[in-house]
Amino acid sequence: MTKRMKERVYEILDLASGEDRISRIFDILIMVLIVLNVMAVILETVESLDSKYHDWFMVFEVFSVIIFSIEYILRVWSATSVKRYKHPFLGRLRFIFTFMALVDLFAILPFYLPLLIPMDLRFIRGIKLIRLLRLLKMTRYSHSIGTFGAVMKKKKEELMIAVFVIIILLITASSLLYFVENDAQPDAFSSIPASMWWGVATLTTVGYGDMYPITGVGRFLAAIIAILGIGMFALPAGILAGGFADELQKQRDLKKQQRKAKRREKEGKATHCPHCGKDINKK
Amino acid sequence: MTKRMKERVYEILDLASGEDRISRIFDILIMVLIVLNVMAVILETVESLDSKYHDWFMVFEVFSVIIFSIEYILRVWSATSVKRYKHPFLGRLRFIFTFMALVDLFAILPFYLPLLIPMDLRFIRGIKLIRLLRLLKMTRYSHSIGTFGAVMKKKKEELMIAVFVIIILLITASSLLYFVENDAQPDAFSSIPASMWWGVATLTTVGYGDMYPITGVGRFLAAIIAILGIGMFALPAGILAGGFADELQKQRDLKKQQRKAKRREKEGKATHCPHCGKDINKK
Amino acid sequence: MTKRMKERVYEILDLASGEDRISRIFDILIMVLIVLNVMAVILETVESLDSKYHDWFMVFEVFSVIIFSIEYILRVWSATSVKRYKHPFLGRLRFIFTFMALVDLFAILPFYLPLLIPMDLRFIRGIKLIRLLRLLKMTRYSHSIGTFGAVMKKKKEELMIAVFVIIILLITASSLLYFVENDAQPDAFSSIPASMWWGVATLTTVGYGDMYPITGVGRFLAAIIAILGIGMFALPAGILAGGFADELQKQRDLKKQQRKAKRREKEGKATHCPHCGKDINKK
Amino acid sequence: MTKRMKERVYEILDLASGEDRISRIFDILIMVLIVLNVMAVILETVESLDSKYHDWFMVFEVFSVIIFSIEYILRVWSATSVKRYKHPFLGRLRFIFTFMALVDLFAILPFYLPLLIPMDLRFIRGIKLIRLLRLLKMTRYSHSIGTFGAVMKKKKEELMIAVFVIIILLITASSLLYFVENDAQPDAFSSIPASMWWGVATLTTVGYGDMYPITGVGRFLAAIIAILGIGMFALPAGILAGGFADELQKQRDLKKQQRKAKRREKEGKATHCPHCGKDINKK
Repeated sequence: MTKRMKERVYEILDLASGEDRISRIFDILIMVLIVLNVMAVILETVESLDSKYHDWFMVFEVFSVIIFSIEYILRVWSATSVKRYKHPFLGRLRFIFTFMALVDLFAILPFYLPLLIPMDLRFIRGIKLIRLLRLLKMTRYSHSIGTFGAVMKKKKEELMIAVFVIIILLITASSLLYFVENDAQPDAFSSIPASMWWGVATLTTVGYGDMYPITGVGRFLAAIIAILGIGMFALPAGILAGGFADELQKQRDLKKQQRKAKRREKEGKATHCPHCGKDINKK
Repeated sequence: MTKRMKERVYEILDLASGEDRISRIFDILIMVLIVLNVMAVILETVESLDSKYHDWFMVFEVFSVIIFSIEYILRVWSATSVKRYKHPFLGRLRFIFTFMALVDLFAILPFYLPLLIPMDLRFIRGIKLIRLLRLLKMTRYSHSIGTFGAVMKKKKEELMIAVFVIIILLITASSLLYFVENDAQPDAFSSIPASMWWGVATLTTVGYGDMYPITGVGRFLAAIIAILGIGMFALPAGILAGGFADELQKQRDLKKQQRKAKRREKEGKATHCPHCGKDINKK
Repeated sequence: MTKRMKERVYEILDLASGEDRISRIFDILIMVLIVLNVMAVILETVESLDSKYHDWFMVFEVFSVIIFSIEYILRVWSATSVKRYKHPFLGRLRFIFTFMALVDLFAILPFYLPLLIPMDLRFIRGIKLIRLLRLLKMTRYSHSIGTFGAVMKKKKEELMIAVFVIIILLITASSLLYFVENDAQPDAFSSIPASMWWGVATLTTVGYGDMYPITGVGRFLAAIIAILGIGMFALPAGILAGGFADELQKQRDLKKQQRKAKRREKEGKATHCPHCGKDINKK
Repeated sequence: MTKRMKERVYEILDLASGEDRISRIFDILIMVLIVLNVMAVILETVESLDSKYHDWFMVFEVFSVIIFSIEYILRVWSATSVKRYKHPFLGRLRFIFTFMALVDLFAILPFYLPLLIPMDLRFIRGIKLIRLLRLLKMTRYSHSIGTFGAVMKKKKEELMIAVFVIIILLITASSLLYFVENDAQPDAFSSIPASMWWGVATLTTVGYGDMYPITGVGRFLAAIIAILGIGMFALPAGILAGGFADELQKQRDLKKQQRKAKRREKEGKATHCPHCGKDINKK
């Protein structure tokens, strides 16, 4: 009996599949709570809001931690209903060290930690911001992040070359400008690492305007670097965008095929030749 | 007789199809009036122009509103010549609440409203700007907006993922910089929402230069965020550009096919096999 | 005899085709002279250089104008050797009003004009800069400009939609920011046209930093506008880049085919079936 | 005996192929040393670090130069084991003037030069930065740079057109703004070359904010230039990104084919028809 209940709890906590209504509602509630939490952390940093609604923020934080704590405990408890984490102790231990379980733990830890260990003020602010990691809990529900990871993996090679080229370019550009501008602006272009701040701002085309060459030679070099270089810094974006488009097209094609196959099966038509096993519906 | 007149009025008001000259001329006149109106609203905000030509602006506004009002009344009156809005009262009521009819109403309302209700000054300025909504009247005549809507719909999924990634990235970047820069620049990076202004300016590569990190750690983080992040903010642009190109290519292919089919028919050639109904002209 | 000489002069002045060495050398000399002229005009605006080398600039200008004048006269004189401009007077008149002949005229006119008509100082500076139009003489020799024109023509439709979207977006963004920021910054966001300067700087991501919202609402709106809008302003670039790539690929394919056909013919092989006329070498 | 040793030395110094472990370890050690050297040069320019760890930097520099010198001498010595550089004197001389050998020489020269020739301070700083050329030693080991070179070569034509268009655009934009803004801002827009600094900052969308038009006409022109022009400056980036993607896809396809062919051969299957020599595995 307890076993069946445990399995049901696991089902509800896990991502809803198909038509499990209760599991679905639970998913949505947790997602809403995560979003509200992130918004609370962000708004809390606005002093005027914090001083006015400090108590409400506290109440909401305590409420959230209670929910997330219960969720965490139930997850650890019900984990044994999966074959991989079957063992009451070792299985659960293994479960606790999975990525998603660690994320769940880190989502509540920042609340308990200051209660256990005395901390200075700056550390407490850090702890407060760590609550933003609750965003990672979204990973469980988000298809986007998965897609993103797949694209990154597939374009790994291109991205690495792009990063390599970017580093070379940044070093070259910054060193040149340092060499040329250091005499005219010893404070701004004080060293190559300092010039790199100019390099990044220029080559990404952000251009804050806090640092720029003022000598003729410096401007000439900077102009050539900007024209030739900005393309390189745009490469990762182009690579990712391309990979992204391909990945989504593939997913759409797959879905279409699956839907087609399903429809065929419903209509009672064979989808594969009974003799050779080949897909009949293909041209 | 009145019925035929009503139908003719509807035809003229509606988008010209084929060779209806009067309808076409009317379309162009309304379009020109819309463009002039938008320009008037824009130029009226320039004080030197407004004080000099105030009366002319007034005259033009009154003239425009009269035309648009007549247009609106005629549209509502002639709406019953379409089957869907046949009923003299309920049909017209239904017509009034279509998107384009509401746009036509909002194009004239800002003129009549201050005559009916007493208003303070700021509200009046708002009312004045609402006249810019007359731009929306262009939708009726613009093919571009339709194309745009089609692209948006088709790439909905990609765009939503991109927006999701952008939000995550913006929150992460702004929180990090807030945490790192708050001590050095408590006024600029005063809270996470304030840091987000920096985040948007940096990740879109606008880089106004009103906010930027000044500490070493902050610059290092900002550099990495800028290099990795700007790609993500360029994604929606890339997605739209791609979808845009595909959509227009499709439209061009369609037009070509239609023209071809027409030519064939004119030449008296069959375009479809009389036996199997297949397109003969396809290879 | 004079006729043959005239034809030879026309050949030399015209773009060199194949192995006409003298014509080729002449082309290169004119191109070098054009580039040097443009550089002279640019460098003349630097006061320190102008005061130092004023006489040299003058000498070079006179020298250039003499060459270009002789070139122009010879062109007009020899134009009659082409069938279209055969008539000694009307033919030459027609030739004079072709685009390239007008460019040649405008290249020398700025020199003669101040000698004929008395002018004020500002006008003279304008006249000086008009010499930059000599750049247009390059059109005759440049393959790039032709390619560019072809791409523009082909992508006309896309570009027009993009421009339309950009204008709508710019008006909307600037009006919103004007409405929101006018109270806080009455000098900067003084009117919608003034706000448009902010709009262009933001949506193109140039971001000079001379104008930006300072109110919370303004920043929020500006952030959303920036994220959604920058893609639209990048559209023309994307469209042109795509069309550019297609055009060049097409040109390369054409060249390859021509070379192949030539080689075949040299080898004495038939390239087309003697029976059906189809290209044999195609798969 | 010495000959075999020489050949072995050459093998180790050369890029490791297959399973030569010692050669591989040597490659990695040299690469690490190069990276550390570049980091040292960069960090040495930070005054606070230099004054603190000056001796350590010196020690590391001497150590590096010794290693690189030994490497260089061994390379020259063992070069004769390759057929092309077989001749003991002329062969080595030819080897010394290969690109990679010159890079190796320039990597150590900055150390020895100041010992031989007396130099002023500024020159010494230049010499120090020349040590950054050690980065070029990476070329030997980097696949990325090779890929990059291949892409550049293939897209040469497109890039040249893009550069040509960029130059024309920059001259036009800068001259216009110089003409329009010179009266209002004689210091900023003092000459066309000075305006070009504005032109580059605007058309690359860097937008430092140190120069921008302030007159109405200037802003209007600048807005149009920015909207139309930024696309052109993005062209090289687009061209390179496209060529990059094609090149890497080609390399991946090649690798796949090679792997397939290998597998087939291992499985003892014929890959080519014994009769016609065609690839059987192709569809």
